[in-house]
Amino acid sequence: MTYKAPIDDQLFVLREVLELENYSNLDGFADAPIDVVEQILKEGAKFAEDVLAPLNGVGDKEGCVWSKDHTVTTPKGFKEAYTQMVESGFPALSSKVEYGGQGLPSIINAPYSEASSSANMAFGMYPGLTHGNYSAILEGGTDEQKDLYLPKLATGEWAGTMNLTEPHCGTDLGLLRTKAVPHGDGTYRITGQKIWISGGEHDMAENIIHLVLARIEGAPEGVKGISLFIVPKFMPTKDGGVGPRNEGAKCVGLEEKMGIHGNATCFMSYEDATGFLIGKENEGLKIMFVMMNEARLHVGLQGLSQAEAAYQAAVEFAKDRLQGRSLTGPKNPDGPADPIIVHPDVRRMLMDSKATVEGCRALLYYGILQADLERHHPDEAMRQKAGDLLGLLTPVIKAYLTDRGFAIASEGMQVHGGSGFTEHFPASQYLRDSRIAMIYEGTNGIQALDLVGRKLASKGGRAVMAYFAELDAFAAENEADEALKPFIECLQKAKGRLQDATTWLMQNGLANPDNAGAASHDYLHLFALSALAYLWAKTAKAAQAKVAARDPNPFYKNKLITARHFIERIAPEGSAHLAKLKSGSANLMSLPAEAF
Amino acid sequence: MTYKAPIDDQLFVLREVLELENYSNLDGFADAPIDVVEQILKEGAKFAEDVLAPLNGVGDKEGCVWSKDHTVTTPKGFKEAYTQMVESGFPALSSKVEYGGQGLPSIINAPYSEASSSANMAFGMYPGLTHGNYSAILEGGTDEQKDLYLPKLATGEWAGTMNLTEPHCGTDLGLLRTKAVPHGDGTYRITGQKIWISGGEHDMAENIIHLVLARIEGAPEGVKGISLFIVPKFMPTKDGGVGPRNEGAKCVGLEEKMGIHGNATCFMSYEDATGFLIGKENEGLKIMFVMMNEARLHVGLQGLSQAEAAYQAAVEFAKDRLQGRSLTGPKNPDGPADPIIVHPDVRRMLMDSKATVEGCRALLYYGILQADLERHHPDEAMRQKAGDLLGLLTPVIKAYLTDRGFAIASEGMQVHGGSGFTEHFPASQYLRDSRIAMIYEGTNGIQALDLVGRKLASKGGRAVMAYFAELDAFAAENEADEALKPFIECLQKAKGRLQDATTWLMQNGLANPDNAGAASHDYLHLFALSALAYLWAKTAKAAQAKVAARDPNPFYKNKLITARHFIERIAPEGSAHLAKLKSGSANLMSLPAEAF
Repeated sequence: MTYKAPIDDQLFVLREVLELENYSNLDGFADAPIDVVEQILKEGAKFAEDVLAPLNGVGDKEGCVWSKDHTVTTPKGFKEAYTQMVESGFPALSSKVEYGGQGLPSIINAPYSEASSSANMAFGMYPGLTHGNYSAILEGGTDEQKDLYLPKLATGEWAGTMNLTEPHCGTDLGLLRTKAVPHGDGTYRITGQKIWISGGEHDMAENIIHLVLARIEGAPEGVKGISLFIVPKFMPTKDGGVGPRNEGAKCVGLEEKMGIHGNATCFMSYEDATGFLIGKENEGLKIMFVMMNEARLHVGLQGLSQAEAAYQAAVEFAKDRLQGRSLTGPKNPDGPADPIIVHPDVRRMLMDSKATVEGCRALLYYGILQADLERHHPDEAMRQKAGDLLGLLTPVIKAYLTDRGFAIASEGMQVHGGSGFTEHFPASQYLRDSRIAMIYEGTNGIQALDLVGRKLASKGGRAVMAYFAELDAFAAENEADEALKPFIECLQKAKGRLQDATTWLMQNGLANPDNAGAASHDYLHLFALSALAYLWAKTAKAAQAKVAARDPNPFYKNKLITARHFIERIAPEGSAHLAKLKSGSANLMSLPAEAF
Repeated sequence: MTYKAPIDDQLFVLREVLELENYSNLDGFADAPIDVVEQILKEGAKFAEDVLAPLNGVGDKEGCVWSKDHTVTTPKGFKEAYTQMVESGFPALSSKVEYGGQGLPSIINAPYSEASSSANMAFGMYPGLTHGNYSAILEGGTDEQKDLYLPKLATGEWAGTMNLTEPHCGTDLGLLRTKAVPHGDGTYRITGQKIWISGGEHDMAENIIHLVLARIEGAPEGVKGISLFIVPKFMPTKDGGVGPRNEGAKCVGLEEKMGIHGNATCFMSYEDATGFLIGKENEGLKIMFVMMNEARLHVGLQGLSQAEAAYQAAVEFAKDRLQGRSLTGPKNPDGPADPIIVHPDVRRMLMDSKATVEGCRALLYYGILQADLERHHPDEAMRQKAGDLLGLLTPVIKAYLTDRGFAIASEGMQVHGGSGFTEHFPASQYLRDSRIAMIYEGTNGIQALDLVGRKLASKGGRAVMAYFAELDAFAAENEADEALKPFIECLQKAKGRLQDATTWLMQNGLANPDNAGAASHDYLHLFALSALAYLWAKTAKAAQAKVAARDPNPFYKNKLITARHFIERIAPEGSAHLAKLKSGSANLMSLPAEAF
């Protein structure tokens, strides 16, 4: 099994669906015309395929090893790959020029990020979280902090982590106990236990910068008394070098997990570790959320990445494995049997996977583009609109892409039959690795609550109204086009269901918040289906234009077939979600706890 | 986490939903009046809870170990538990009295089988396959073979296996290469490689009886030339003792798998091993299908069993874990937070799990009862009807219960949040173990093809017409009952969708078999939803009768709530399945293979 980055599809999304060239007047975009993007993307693909992919199975089998001296050894080859990655400059693509980055839009980085995560999800987490750490310090740090940390974090020379969870508190950060005591010299002494810290300790970077949530002595209880601290593994010297060990910050063990064995999931112990306050006292969550929102998009990307990798493995198996004959007569008459890709039920699984992967890619990239537009668009109204849209799409992308990522990884295993359950094929690793993405950075249930409880209601529903308007405008603009008719109808139907669900929520969720909670999962999926219907309609429009112009590349005709598969076999799930949502919470909540 | 056998629900299904006492005039049933059944069930539960459950994690962590002398050591404690099991008499409950069994109906055995598989799926496979082996020899063996093997297989003193798969052939048995050469003394010499042989070698039983599919020299190619052989690990002596080692039959390695580590999945090598023909030459598949059909029901049972175990673990976690506050005000005001079971989205996952588990239990037991009725009913028409129904339900139970078993195991992990992904909680093992059930004994795709391509069409559709008539009769009989109205409406709707799909298949599947193949997965799920709607309606009727009679046991009121959950949040999936099914195969099959 050899992973190949899906360059053609990635470029198609950037160039023809999102029409990146329309944004060349924006900051950063001008530096990456599409031919440069293509070049970057191909180099990134090569690195993912040649360096990271061969280490994926190694990472799974070897895992990370903790030693009593509190060091962690990553699997064989990881350290060298990490060094190559830093030298390649990929991590710094979208970092600011003044901090050693290349200042390109995030969207340019998305295909490389996706490919590296497909090739090796456990490895990709290290630079992924480091970039989130970079963004948080960029957002909340002092100039001095930025000058000191950002250039090293941008390149990946230093790695970064986020420390939120404690044994008794994950989702509910108000229960957080880690404490910070002012030391009198502007620094704090941090003491507490943090668990599930991805990349909390390893041997790949010369320093690790922990961002740690803690409560300053005397701070209010609950979420209002939480501050954020920079706790470096080694104290930085003024010139950006590495000073003495921050003795109080150490990894005291690794979590034994079902997957992502190549990533060190650390128990971190802080005992009077030196920390530097970032941002204001008691306002740490605000900055952490910058990192978290970026991380949520990255986790959505992980879902997509594992679906793509699992799909590729399933396709390879389905073309190789000879078993049975096609129902409509032999397709490989000279062989002992036909390849199983001829069987309609195998096709069903592969087409579901293909349509999911391609639709989710377009949706993810569209979301990341909003982040760029929010940052770089010259028009404030456009920045606001992009920010609103990003707010809605972040939980949708995180939850839907990871739900589907795991489902497609499982479908990929199913295509393999018994072989898939053995560890000789990669299907098991994709299934095991992909599962965590539904959980971390806020479980998918929390994403759904964020969407329904916070994002929808925010500013009088401004964001969702703008979203509906965008979908309506696209439909109105294209509904006269006969060739696009099924795609526009699918969009209108999916949007209609979401609107119906939104109305139901407004009528029932305010009076009884349990109705909102009970509806949240199905609402998020209805939202995702509407967004996918929109992006498939845009995709079909781009592909149809090429087909109409008799473009000889079969890619476009095939894209229309895949788009139609979405209409026929994915979009119909909306009907079930809507019916479930409308059943409300009355019966759902009525069993006494002891009856479970 | 302590597994508890769901005795109350098991008894409710046997006594009140299936009304076992109605069958006391049947062979075997009279020997087990309901108070005896209850006694058996409680003893079985105790064995599962006290002996098997504590070994589940051990089996996962230790796995089986192969040695160069071709022996396999099972995990610590398995051998002792196996001995206890043989002494307990449970494996022989439903075996024939003349072969040392107790001659009870299979349905009496179902609760124990379920509990032992919930407690330890990997362990439960050893006696499960042994019983299938017993059934095949009972079906096809000579009197001499039966007398020699059955008493030992019935008790579990000897274990049994089924050997179908070879490296190049799983689903497509026509490609089978293992050969059998007559030795001139009535025996054969068997030579070939078999893979994925569950329990192919282990240290728990004094002998292992392999049933091996092979091709007698000169036999026709394809499935028409396959015979079945008994290949014992040790040659039996005439008095049922253990003679010399059958040297040519050995385990040459174990498969490394994602789950069920406690079960030895063997590469078997046969080199001139001594085999005894069972049944007629070239008619081996017919007998193997006896074993296979029984095994398919058992695999459906495994799906249910893992869903139940995962659900129990999730409930325990959801009651213990304090995180956040209820949306409608604190429910645990004296604690730092509320248990997460108060959150509607957690409820959603638990109620989906509970309704799935309880509905699937009723469906499975109903299916197993048909097997008993087919064997024991005095009226030939009833035997035929039961056999027809069992034929339809076997693929449905196998595929639907295992699809859902894995989904519920995943849901159980989701309830755990990050803890679920670690190996400190059992959620990961349930998820990993349950996954194989969707694959082995014929992938779920093969089950769907069996249903659509074979069972539906058989005898002019006699079976499905009888099934529809049974559902209609129940609906007609109860539709006037106001209290049952929602359940009868749900049944009519689910049955209507299945009938609609059946008509579509008749109109489109014959002209183009790809349409049947493309529809098969969704058709099977529509079938399952109709059967569940039927069993939930029967369940609601039984519970409603008790509620109306003011029975003080809250079980009945709670059962109605769970039944309603099925209506509200599971049955609606039928709409999506029907829409997908009707999209046909045209677009699905239209991409050229190279476009994947």
